[in-house]
Amino acid sequence: MIFIKSTDTDFNENFQELLGRGKMDIAYVSSIVGGIIDEIKANKNKALFEHIAKFDNWTPKNDDDLKISQESMSKAYDNLDKALKDSLHLAYERIKLYHEKQKPKSWFDTEANGTILGQKVTPVDSAGLYIPGGKAAYPSSLLMNVIPAQVAGVENIVVCTPTPDNEPNELLLAACHLCGVDQVYKVGGASAIAAMAYGTQNIPKVDVVTGPGNIFVATAKKMVFGDVNIDMIAGPSEIGILADDSANPSHMAIDLLSQAEHDEMASSILITPSQKLADAVEKEIENWLQKLPREAIARKSIEERGAIIVTKDMDAAVSLMNEIAPEHLEVATMSPFELLPYIKHAGAIFLGHNTPEAIGDYVAGPNHTLPTGGTAKFYSPLGVEDFMKKSSIISFSSAAINEIGEECALIANTEGLTAHEQSVRVRLTK
Amino acid sequence: MIFIKSTDTDFNENFQELLGRGKMDIAYVSSIVGGIIDEIKANKNKALFEHIAKFDNWTPKNDDDLKISQESMSKAYDNLDKALKDSLHLAYERIKLYHEKQKPKSWFDTEANGTILGQKVTPVDSAGLYIPGGKAAYPSSLLMNVIPAQVAGVENIVVCTPTPDNEPNELLLAACHLCGVDQVYKVGGASAIAAMAYGTQNIPKVDVVTGPGNIFVATAKKMVFGDVNIDMIAGPSEIGILADDSANPSHMAIDLLSQAEHDEMASSILITPSQKLADAVEKEIENWLQKLPREAIARKSIEERGAIIVTKDMDAAVSLMNEIAPEHLEVATMSPFELLPYIKHAGAIFLGHNTPEAIGDYVAGPNHTLPTGGTAKFYSPLGVEDFMKKSSIISFSSAAINEIGEECALIANTEGLTAHEQSVRVRLTK
Repeated sequence: MIFIKSTDTDFNENFQELLGRGKMDIAYVSSIVGGIIDEIKANKNKALFEHIAKFDNWTPKNDDDLKISQESMSKAYDNLDKALKDSLHLAYERIKLYHEKQKPKSWFDTEANGTILGQKVTPVDSAGLYIPGGKAAYPSSLLMNVIPAQVAGVENIVVCTPTPDNEPNELLLAACHLCGVDQVYKVGGASAIAAMAYGTQNIPKVDVVTGPGNIFVATAKKMVFGDVNIDMIAGPSEIGILADDSANPSHMAIDLLSQAEHDEMASSILITPSQKLADAVEKEIENWLQKLPREAIARKSIEERGAIIVTKDMDAAVSLMNEIAPEHLEVATMSPFELLPYIKHAGAIFLGHNTPEAIGDYVAGPNHTLPTGGTAKFYSPLGVEDFMKKSSIISFSSAAINEIGEECALIANTEGLTAHEQSVRVRLTK
Repeated sequence: MIFIKSTDTDFNENFQELLGRGKMDIAYVSSIVGGIIDEIKANKNKALFEHIAKFDNWTPKNDDDLKISQESMSKAYDNLDKALKDSLHLAYERIKLYHEKQKPKSWFDTEANGTILGQKVTPVDSAGLYIPGGKAAYPSSLLMNVIPAQVAGVENIVVCTPTPDNEPNELLLAACHLCGVDQVYKVGGASAIAAMAYGTQNIPKVDVVTGPGNIFVATAKKMVFGDVNIDMIAGPSEIGILADDSANPSHMAIDLLSQAEHDEMASSILITPSQKLADAVEKEIENWLQKLPREAIARKSIEERGAIIVTKDMDAAVSLMNEIAPEHLEVATMSPFELLPYIKHAGAIFLGHNTPEAIGDYVAGPNHTLPTGGTAKFYSPLGVEDFMKKSSIISFSSAAINEIGEECALIANTEGLTAHEQSVRVRLTK
């Protein structure tokens, strides 16, 4: 963990290093991933079978064997402990409610001369959701990808997830049943992304591919982008916290560790004008670490990629945080909404002392798939709009084209496009 | 030009070939473009100077020489013919008005237990717009890229455009002045995309890169995607027309040719249930072709990539058009709005006999940067949202976290993430 002050002479150097967090060097996996994609495009399920044998240690008997049966999903759901089942239903309902509010509407406007202009918003026909599998299979990831696609109105939702040793994760199966997903394929990694982007004998080609994954999955998503749309290219998880003396040091420490426990590459950064808080949080981190089952991962992450930065005031803290543009940002201050106007870049903003980041991972409602590594400067959280697209609507009356057709024809002519010009002129009647 | 009937026995084969239109094989330029990007990242302006010498046939004297002076833009504007100046102002105002209507708003909602959930929408800090230059420099492209960025509220707008022989296109300069753009650099191709994505001595690194271009530009955009956001990967222009007997064959012919004149690779497809209309349009195309200054390009395009398809009824025509998902779609029928609900995929939809596609290229208001090659199945027109991004807003009260914290902690525990669990539990007071 590094402790730096924004007034240190070598601050900029240290801070620039922090900004480099989460940058993925995809160059070294590009040729491998490119090869995998080419194999799937050429040989479809035959290539999938080979990749599954190699990476997941089992061999499908036939095409149907790639698909998880609805019976096994329904059985996994029935086997859920009641409290967990209720909690997942609560999560499902709250996530659905939030995403329904974010659904864009078609709109149009009219002009007195008979013009109609607008935008028609429609769902994509089909979406492919990648959900990591095996031990790190998170049912919450399934909910967070399926629900926006369902709210968008996507007719055809396909899920791919790796099943090492042909042993599907029961929690994930249960979540599939809960969400009403029925096309789930036991395929992982770059192969799964290619299968959904280009289609195989029984995995349908989709229009949009979303979902988290390792560097191979991220690279494959970048490579198929253009042939399909994708949500974003995401890296290791991060949390940034802006806090003042009103914050509870123990809470700040466990919040930082809640990212650190994800992944040794995760980064957790506290920025505060309070030296007192900084010192107290450092102590609390050590106290908490010893109590965590995932201590080894969390310790490595916090030691190598954790940081506490003390600034001269809160303005300076906010300004640094905007440069970091963290995936998750907690604002643990006395009056957090006062800072909101000044926060420019963050995937999700958690305001106040009762809003730990983890509440947003599961049940709050907003999506937990968020831009990482500073890409919150230009990417948005996964949402309903990722599964929809727009068409411009233009309708001119005879009066309307007479009113502005001449200007249109002149610009077309100036650009040397006379067929454009003529296509307008033939409609002019005045 | 191919003439096919949807009832022909070999129809599917012919139609599949049509669907392959506009697919760009970027594999063969990838290594060249990758090399160009690496050079710009490593050597910045030094590499730019070399690329400009090679591709644009002049050598900048120094860094400042890359930038177009505001004086030259203002002079170009002053030199505009009055009618053209007024037409460009009309276009600017109408495009601005339309895009203002499309600007998304931040929103939030509250719950009785003190929860606040919402979404904050903010502009990106900086945008880089690529505008093709030389003879094919279109001032309309500048307007269509600059205005959505301005409406979004982007503070830092950078334009790159190639200037062969160091001779900027005067129309483009005038349009820059009209739009109030002041950072315009004489850099083209993949080099320009890389310069804006990674920054050089004087070209600022941006967050979003948009704009049309050839296959090198498109490939560069795909390669920098992830380090910056991009709008879409676009190919040759297209028009699809759905028409019935109420359509004027001469109008249909010139509308088809208005795409064909763009580019030999452009494609123009009429689908109609009327054999009579199909025959008449064919004759009118030949009549018009002989009158076009760009006859050679238009003829090659229409012969090699034009198509007239006759279907058994309008439903079949709409269904085929949805498979094509054209960039521009004209609906030239008696009651075009009756078909609107059934049109699923198109970049822009032009409804009725008085709405030629060209009106949307210049003055109607909606953006003319649209998804091509069937990508309207998942991409949207360029818009204000391409220059903005969202942050989720989450604020819980003590009552709120007490209400659903237990469920959250249980799911976190089930996923094996106990720091997540604890970060919620420490806030529970009931």
